[in-house]
Formats: sequence, C-alpha cells, structure tokens
Amino acid sequence: MVEPRTLMRLFLTLCLYVSLATIPFAEARIRHYKWEVKYEYKSPDCYKKLMITINGRSPGPTIMAQQNDTIIVELKNSLLTENVAIHWHGIRQIGTPWFDGAEGVTQCPIVPGDTFVYKYVVDRPGTFLYHAHYGMQRVAGLYGSIRVALPDGESEPFSYDYDQSVILQDWYHKSTYEQATGLSSIPFGWVGEPQSLLIQGRGRFDCSTPGIEAGLCNATNPECSPYVITVVPGKTYRLRISSLTGLSALSFEIEGHNMTVVATDGHYVEPFVVKNLFIYSGETYSVLIKTDQDPSRNYWASSTVVSRNRTTPNGLAIFNYYPNHPRKSPPTVPPPGPAWNDSAPRVAQSLAIKARQGYIYPPPQTSDRVIVLLNTQNKFNGYFRWSVNNVSYNLPHTPYLIALKENLKHVFDQTPPPTGYDTLNYDIYSPPPNPNVTTSNSIYRLQFNSVVDIVLQNANSLSNHTSETHPWHLHGHNFWVMGYGVGKYDMVNDPKKYNLVDPIMKNTVPVHPYGWTALRFQADNPGVWAFHCHIESHFYMGMGVVFEEGIEKVGKLPTSIMGCGDTKGFHRP
Amino acid sequence: MVEPRTLMRLFLTLCLYVSLATIPFAEARIRHYKWEVKYEYKSPDCYKKLMITINGRSPGPTIMAQQNDTIIVELKNSLLTENVAIHWHGIRQIGTPWFDGAEGVTQCPIVPGDTFVYKYVVDRPGTFLYHAHYGMQRVAGLYGSIRVALPDGESEPFSYDYDQSVILQDWYHKSTYEQATGLSSIPFGWVGEPQSLLIQGRGRFDCSTPGIEAGLCNATNPECSPYVITVVPGKTYRLRISSLTGLSALSFEIEGHNMTVVATDGHYVEPFVVKNLFIYSGETYSVLIKTDQDPSRNYWASSTVVSRNRTTPNGLAIFNYYPNHPRKSPPTVPPPGPAWNDSAPRVAQSLAIKARQGYIYPPPQTSDRVIVLLNTQNKFNGYFRWSVNNVSYNLPHTPYLIALKENLKHVFDQTPPPTGYDTLNYDIYSPPPNPNVTTSNSIYRLQFNSVVDIVLQNANSLSNHTSETHPWHLHGHNFWVMGYGVGKYDMVNDPKKYNLVDPIMKNTVPVHPYGWTALRFQADNPGVWAFHCHIESHFYMGMGVVFEEGIEKVGKLPTSIMGCGDTKGFHRP
Repeated sequence: MVEPRTLMRLFLTLCLYVSLATIPFAEARIRHYKWEVKYEYKSPDCYKKLMITINGRSPGPTIMAQQNDTIIVELKNSLLTENVAIHWHGIRQIGTPWFDGAEGVTQCPIVPGDTFVYKYVVDRPGTFLYHAHYGMQRVAGLYGSIRVALPDGESEPFSYDYDQSVILQDWYHKSTYEQATGLSSIPFGWVGEPQSLLIQGRGRFDCSTPGIEAGLCNATNPECSPYVITVVPGKTYRLRISSLTGLSALSFEIEGHNMTVVATDGHYVEPFVVKNLFIYSGETYSVLIKTDQDPSRNYWASSTVVSRNRTTPNGLAIFNYYPNHPRKSPPTVPPPGPAWNDSAPRVAQSLAIKARQGYIYPPPQTSDRVIVLLNTQNKFNGYFRWSVNNVSYNLPHTPYLIALKENLKHVFDQTPPPTGYDTLNYDIYSPPPNPNVTTSNSIYRLQFNSVVDIVLQNANSLSNHTSETHPWHLHGHNFWVMGYGVGKYDMVNDPKKYNLVDPIMKNTVPVHPYGWTALRFQADNPGVWAFHCHIESHFYMGMGVVFEEGIEKVGKLPTSIMGCGDTKGFHRP
Repeated sequence: MVEPRTLMRLFLTLCLYVSLATIPFAEARIRHYKWEVKYEYKSPDCYKKLMITINGRSPGPTIMAQQNDTIIVELKNSLLTENVAIHWHGIRQIGTPWFDGAEGVTQCPIVPGDTFVYKYVVDRPGTFLYHAHYGMQRVAGLYGSIRVALPDGESEPFSYDYDQSVILQDWYHKSTYEQATGLSSIPFGWVGEPQSLLIQGRGRFDCSTPGIEAGLCNATNPECSPYVITVVPGKTYRLRISSLTGLSALSFEIEGHNMTVVATDGHYVEPFVVKNLFIYSGETYSVLIKTDQDPSRNYWASSTVVSRNRTTPNGLAIFNYYPNHPRKSPPTVPPPGPAWNDSAPRVAQSLAIKARQGYIYPPPQTSDRVIVLLNTQNKFNGYFRWSVNNVSYNLPHTPYLIALKENLKHVFDQTPPPTGYDTLNYDIYSPPPNPNVTTSNSIYRLQFNSVVDIVLQNANSLSNHTSETHPWHLHGHNFWVMGYGVGKYDMVNDPKKYNLVDPIMKNTVPVHPYGWTALRFQADNPGVWAFHCHIESHFYMGMGVVFEEGIEKVGKLPTSIMGCGDTKGFHRP
C-alpha cells in the first residue's frame, strides 16, 4: 500500500519539475558544479560492492543547461590512491580541447586530493553524457547525463508534456581492477557476461544464485528497488535514453507502448516508430511515448542484451501509470526482447535513422581522404588484444595534446598508422590467418578543415563464426553517417550508395557484425581527439585511434592538464 | 614421493646459497634493481585474488647488500590508475630524507607509467624491510626484505651456518579499497579478522569454508603449498623473522626448537632463549636455531595471532630436516600457540630485550623534551578514528618535506600538536568519556640534535575492557627503548626506572594493552619523519604524528619527489 503522503510528494515533485522546465531562461549563464569523487559501497542490483560515486551517487548528478551555457565542474578526487579523468561525451569542446577529459590524449590524470576545474561551453542542444575516461573506471559507476535545452524562443520540432532521462548500463560484480588485470594477463582471464543490467542505476541480481558470498546480496535493499518512470495517462513523454554499458548492446522497450524516435546524439531524427530501440554504448536517443494504454495497471520497461549470446537477465524498470502504486508489479511476464543473434532488425534501425527534414546539415559531397579501419581481435606477445588495421593501440603517459603543442616528439611514435588493410586478400569471414599484431601509440594527423571519410570494417574475431558489434565514438565532432553495409566494403561501388541527402549526424555509431559503417566528418576542431570502440574492455585492449587536426590553432593550454609523463614541471601553480 | 631430481635441485640451491653468502665483498658498491609494480592474480592462501607484485612476486625480491652500499631501485609503476610509493623501513636515509618513501610526508606519489628512482645508502648492517607507504597498499602485497651484511673483515658476535629470511603477514580476501572504504564510511564497515596468516607469502585458507565463491579457491594450487625451511641436522640457522601484518600481533615458533634472540631492527640483542617469539608489525628479529632434534621427521613452523581474540587459523610452514621430503607433514598436531589474551609473557619479552654487551650505544642520560602520546580510539563527525592526544591525524596532499623547504606554510596547520593529555583526570581504563576528537595535519618541530623522549600511553578503546597492542614505527631513526610499564605513566617516578645502561635500539616498538612505552632519540637526522602505529588500518584512521628536525640542513631536494598538491610544476624534467 502506498501512503497518500507518498503520492502527494510524487505529485508535488512532478509539479515542481514542470514548473522548473518552464522557467524562462535569460542569456547564456554559468552552471557551476562541485563534485566529489570517491568510493562507496552500493547495492545497485542488490549485490553490495564498491562503486565510484559523485557526491554520493551513481549515476552522478545530471547536468542541466541551456545551449551556449558555460559548464564549470570543480572535481575533487577523494579516491585514496587512484587518479581520475572525466570525458564530456558528445560535447565538442570547441576552443577548449584540453577539457575533453581523455586521459593520455588531452590531459594528465587528476591525482588524489586534487581539485580539477573543467570549464566548457555546451554549444548544441540535446542529450549528452559524461563518464570516466581513465583505465576502466567508467564501469565502476562514474557516469551521468548532460541535458542541454534550446535557447529561449526556440522550440523543438516535436512536442511533449514531460521529459525524463534514463541511462542504461550493464553491471559487473568484479571490480574494474579484477576485470582489467584478467584482460591483460597470460592466461587471459575474462570475468564473463555482466551480472545484471541497470536502468538509471538500478537493477536486480538474483540473491539466491549459488556461490554468492553470505551477506553481500540483499533482495530487500531499497537501493535495488526497480527504477520507476511515473506517468499520467493521456500525455506524451520524451524519454532520453542513453547507454553507457561496458560491454553489452541493448534493446530497450516499454511493454505495450510504441516509441517514436525523434533525436539521437543531439540531432533531430526524421521520426520513425519502433517497438524496441536498439542502443549501443555511447549512444543517446530521444523517443516520444504516448501514455495511451490501459491506465489501471503498470507496464514493464525492459533492457535486453543483443548481439552476444546473453546470460545476463533483462533489466527491468516500472512504467507506472499514476495513480497506481509505483511499486506494483505489472500483471504480465516481462517482454523477452528480440533474438540476440538476429542482426537484421538492428541494421534496419541503423538505416532508418535520417536527419529530420528542415534540420538537415548537408554533408560535403566529397571527401579529401579515406581511412579504412579493419576491426579485429588479435594477439600480441600472447596477450589478447583488439586491433585496427592490425595495430593494437596503446595510450601514452604524456598526453598528445601537450606533446604536440610543446613539440615533445619522443613521447609517441611519429610514424603514421596504416590507413587501410589488405582489402584484396583479407577474408573478413574467417579468424585472422596470423593473429599476431603490433602495438603502437601513433596517431592520424588530419589536414585542418579537410573532409575525412572513415570506413569501419568489421570482421571475424578470433573464434570461428563470431563477429561482434562495436560502437565507435568520436571525440570533438559530430560525423555524418554515410552508410552501412553487410560484408566487405567495396571502395569503388559502396561510396556511390552513400546518403548524401539527409544523413544523420552522430558521435557514436555501431559497426554491425561482418558489416561496415562509413562516416564523414570535417576536421575543423583544433585539437587531438580519440576515436574508439566504446566497449570499455575493447578500448582498454587497443581498439582505438587518435586524430590530430589544427594543433597550431589550439590556444594556450591550461597548465592544470599537465604534470605527468614528460610534462612534469609544466604545471605552474 | 619426492623425485631424486628435486632433492638434488634443493641441495644444489643450498650449496649455491652458501657459496654466494661467502663471496668476499670488495668496497661499498651500487646495488641496482629494476622493479615493475603491477596487479596480478595470485593465490597465496589458495584463494585467488589480486595482489600488487614486484616483478611478478609478492613478497618482492630481497635486497641483498653490504653496509655502506648504495641501493638504487628504479621503480616502474605499471598499475592502471593507481599511484604508488615505497618506504625503506629501518633505513635512516641519512642525507636522503626525500627517498624515505612516505607519501604525503617525503614525496608525491608515483603515477602510472612513471619510473621513480630511489637511491640511498644502507649505513647499518641488519635486517630491514620495504613496503608500500601510500593508502593501504601494503596489505595488497607490496613488500619485501632488505638484508645488509657487515663490511669485509667484520664479523657478528654470534655464529651460524646458514641464514634465511622469513616475512610474516596476515592476509585478507577483500581488496584494500574495500577495506579502506568501509573504515571511512558511516556506518563503519570492518572486514573483520584476516582470512589467513602467511609465512613468506604462503598460507592456507580452508577452501571448503561455506560461502566461498565457486572457482576462487583451489587447495591444490602450488602457489599455496606450505613454505618450506629446509635444514640439515646438527647446524645452527639464523632466521631473520619480520612481521608486516596489516593488523595482527603474532607469536612465531618452531615446534620442538628453542630460538635464541640475537638481533632486532638492526641491533644486537643480549641473547635470550624463547620457545615462541612475539613479533609486531614492523619489527624484525634474528634468532638462532640449532637443528638438534630428531632428524627423521619434519616440524611445524607456526604463526599465531595474539592480543586479539583470534579467529584466523595459525599460519603453518614446514621446518624440513633434510633428507626428509620437504612436503611431508610433521606427525604432530601443530602447536596451538600462546593464549591470545595473556599479555604478561609479551611484556616479559619486551623487557628481556637489551643491547648486547660490547654493542651498547649508551643513551643520553637526560632528554631535552618529553612528548606524551595518548593512544585512543575515537570518533570524528561520526567516523571511527584513532587518535593521539585526542587529535586524529590526516596526511596532507603536499608532502611536508617540500612544503617546509619551499616555505609553503598554507599546506598544513602550523599550530603545534599537543604534547600531552590530561594525565591527571583521564582514566585509561575506561572508554573515552567524550569520544569526539579533532583532526589535524600539524607536526612536531624538534630542535636539531635535541634529545626527545616519547611516552606512548595506551588506553581503553571505545569498547569496554579492550585495549589493543600498537606497534609504533619511527622513520629516519633508531630510538632507545627506555622502559615499559603497566597502567598510567607516572611523570615523576617512571623515568627513574628507565634503562640508562643497556637499552636496545629499535625502529618499531609495541605499546602493550593498558601500558606505556618510553623511547628516547636524538633529533639528528635532518628531514621530516613519520611516527605511527604500524597497523595499516590504524595509521589510515589517524594514528600517527610527524616530526621535523633540521629542515634547514636538508640538501637540495630532487624534483622527482615533487609535482603533487601545491608542488605542481616543481618537478623539472
């Protein structure tokens, strides 16, 4: 039984929310946050383990801003012996490439006891993310949402009554140290599939699973009560759905409700309706949902692993029709989700995403340069690695941005990485004939303002008949998604099929199993930018590259990003 | 059955050992080590967990040197996101106070990817230790032995045939993060007593214990086969026994064999015989053992928790009489060890330790200053803490040594900490009447070359009828142990009972339950020196102080120790 007081509180919260959302904004302002990062014991799926929290929470506080606002985050590292860095995922950092938060690329890590100040402008409206970008800290819980509203007087090309953010996540019971150490050991140790799926930081692990240490799992812990999306009947809800999974590709659905996809990665989508939304780590989607179903009951909101033979149970939240009790279980069996190994509907969704009419940024019709990136699983000195064009990537300990500005040529390999692979002879449908690769920290240097095409080419991993989905995320840019294809990319014919009319712009895009994905972007943002598979373990194991463009146009670096590797002493007090 | 080949290998190893030990040394030389610190999965007690290793090992490599040699350790931090610092426990660092390795006191932490070079002279012969001195990393396995031989032509005042080092340790299955986070949480979370005791890095946890996660514990893993001390009959063995427990006070014994204590913390002891040796974290002892027992069998070597109501099973190694099979279990039940709560024999051992005749360093007969340090368990803002004179100590993030040399007065509280407590009214036999204390990072500034007396006064902890044993370790010095007593220290009468004739010099000394311990040292080593309870969690929870002396005599600091807190930019490449 829900108490009337609880219901009233919920109602008042809703009212407050609506009133806040309608306060007229003045001009661009400064949004100032003070965050403390530390370890805490939490039970997000009923199993108690250490999480990295921000001000006691994971997901951390949502950054709420308006286009052109300046965000200032004073981040205090209160971890005991561990450094940290935070990336503002989807924010281009125009004029502030030093605050992109990618450790080893744009900054030194923030040591315990230090307070680091990130300061940047959110130049585009939309739904973005933030998360740790150091080691594998993201999967320890250090992440959150950024929501940027339109400027005063502008309105979106769709309407809705309420607006809510939901981050999807997968969750491991092993620590990030345990995960990372296993991945870089001989013999290779993999912690396996995640134990649970979280929806806005809440999931449910079955505490009666055999072999669980006594006292660690408590099914009645309120921290793992299902996340509740409370709605009133007959309204339209905007749901901003993001994924920051460590590993899993997901399908998300709300039982009995269609979703109209209207935006992704800060760009409007020509609306289309889905029953379930496929979403990959690093992506954000806005969908509209009408609360037009039987209001006398609640419904399941559910996330399901796809693209891998799932062992992780579905993540469940409650889509609660007011005034039903928010904790009342829906009377139905949760939806099972789509078949894990059917990639056709996932490719279909990718193809369905076009820029919305009236909001099209026309792509350059030609490119100045094409870089083909073969995605493979490999070995290096007996270690499992992921590679791009048979080079597995290693982060340096002196950030490129500083090394390039200060002309420290010795800190990374100056030879350019390969811009393609042996397209003629390489069989993408078989495991690599020679699994051994090299490692490097060399980077691609792009001509400033040039138009660059990237073709991500997927292939078979080390196991027969296996090709995974890799979501690639580009820092510092939005790119046009020019096309997707199945099989080996054809340099001659496939470009002819590119969408030159209404391609969507994104910052994260999947390359489907045995398929290819073509992107185009303009190298117009002076800085050094990571481009990598957003699966935490894959980037850790070498699946990434780095682009430099217009380094000579980058302004004076703040010394706060310095102090590590060969930039010791560069940090002036 | 042991293979003849194995026995031959053992025998050859013994021979090699003897020959190495007798190679004549020339003059002082440089001992150069290259160490890589990283996480690895290990099963020291059959339970698989992460350990911090040096060159793949825990305990790390033993540093073997001769008096006046220079030790150079190039330490590469290959941890993923975590910094590190290493203290050379018992080495006074005369002229090199910056290489003492105490994070926050003498150096900034070493960040991942960096190589830090420690360089110092081992100016005294004896048995010393090294271990992490940052956060609670020591209990993750980052430790080892230092053995310093006499100069050529000098000999020890006792003789033996063989020489062997053994480090005793207690071992937790929870990570250091889990331990530390619980200790600094509300509600307080304590991981409890250790799961096992290790002897030279090997112990045995009962894999059939209920609630152990499947696959993590393997009783047949060779990593947890008992440590073997192989001896030949009719010889005298020098055993260098050290303790680096995180929590436990220990008793160590070798079934059926007496031990003659001949040295402690690098100083010769007037020999006395014990059946079991009490040893506290941070102490080292050399004992002589005659292999004069029935040679047809093996014997147990055993460590046992004392001073706490033990739940941790005894640690067991095999004292193997050659040519019995080294893995052959002794035919006897392992010795149970002494009663945990009988502190009388422990005090008696403390009192028995005197400087050896002919090797007495006479103490100054008077002191210039007396500092009384009341040891209590307390609370601060609801957090459990340990305190000294009702001040719980916090490490700053700018090392004192640099702050003092560079005159950065704002980085720590300049008010001196209290030099005593309310001796008249405080009842050491009751829990603190007001458990709340303050915290501070202020330090004691000692007049250079002055003689300082420290009286450690134990008391009741927060629970009734409980007083723990605290082993206090002083960096940068050896101190004279002037006396021990039961109850409250009497400022007038107790100094009269001080041993002014033949007090032992040590660097680590226990204060027994409800007792006091008085030390005297000369503040003759320019630098900044930590003095703290060597129980890892106690120092982490505030049980420590810091002394400065002769800072103006400290030479030019190497910039390699700088770069953190307010010394950013001080590190010149």
